[in-house]
Amino acid sequence: MTGALVRTARPEDAATILRLIRELAEFEELLDQVKAREEDILRDGFGPTPRFECLLAELDGAPVGFALFFHNYSTFEGRAGLYLEDIYVSPAARGSGLGRALMARLARIAVERGCARFDFWVLHWNPARAFYDRLGFAHMEDWLPYRVEGQGLRDLAGEDGG
Amino acid sequence: MTGALVRTARPEDAATILRLIRELAEFEELLDQVKAREEDILRDGFGPTPRFECLLAELDGAPVGFALFFHNYSTFEGRAGLYLEDIYVSPAARGSGLGRALMARLARIAVERGCARFDFWVLHWNPARAFYDRLGFAHMEDWLPYRVEGQGLRDLAGEDGG
Repeated sequence: MTGALVRTARPEDAATILRLIRELAEFEELLDQVKAREEDILRDGFGPTPRFECLLAELDGAPVGFALFFHNYSTFEGRAGLYLEDIYVSPAARGSGLGRALMARLARIAVERGCARFDFWVLHWNPARAFYDRLGFAHMEDWLPYRVEGQGLRDLAGEDGG
Repeated sequence: MTGALVRTARPEDAATILRLIRELAEFEELLDQVKAREEDILRDGFGPTPRFECLLAELDGAPVGFALFFHNYSTFEGRAGLYLEDIYVSPAARGSGLGRALMARLARIAVERGCARFDFWVLHWNPARAFYDRLGFAHMEDWLPYRVEGQGLRDLAGEDGG
């Protein structure tokens, strides 16, 4: 891990974060879905109402990865949890230990803040699943993610008479 | 829907919310996992750092259901989304339209706040999946939920040297 470092992202990292989000989306074959702009990252990560927090992974001073997270809530635990929206280390930096270092830092943040759980969603074909298994994560096989968006969301909203 | 009403929960509803959380957990066969206490609901829903928001469904003035939610974040959209942690209508009140009314209110809140998505997790055997399909939700088949908690979370946190 010589030259490898995990640090909290700062406002001046917004363009770097967006670049890494786009690299991750390309890996996930979802680049066409990325609408985020640098001003969105600045506003939602570093403005008066932060919607997420972000860690950057650096190798010899160059940003090569990131982890973007926020707090969810468990009504069973009666406390907040940590939800990891994105984690990514660029291919050239794999094997540096930075993926594991990002995950360990997130876990420490979760524990320090009293979170009982650390959750995320993984694409079923993502080869990193074996890596997540080794870190101690479990696939929650009983649970299925559901979503409504776009016109479906607007149609459902239109039913509300309140 | 005569006598059926959806409203925003207030601090004095904390005990009712906890009762409904426990009813939902019993339905999910997970009641042994519920550690939340009334003071947790008060602190995290109605304190200085709210971790969730809550709607109550009433039938003829009696609370019979709830929906508890918070904001997540999409790095692809570059904006917050709505995440539904729990939705529940007690068996005696089913067929009243309150489940659909809760979902429509949540969708309207999402649209009014500029959210692009409305997500949740469903237990695979939950018969309400057919209801969610009718409302326009889709099972995100490509995505799998992962979690680390308890000793696994503490072990991972212990690896962080930063």
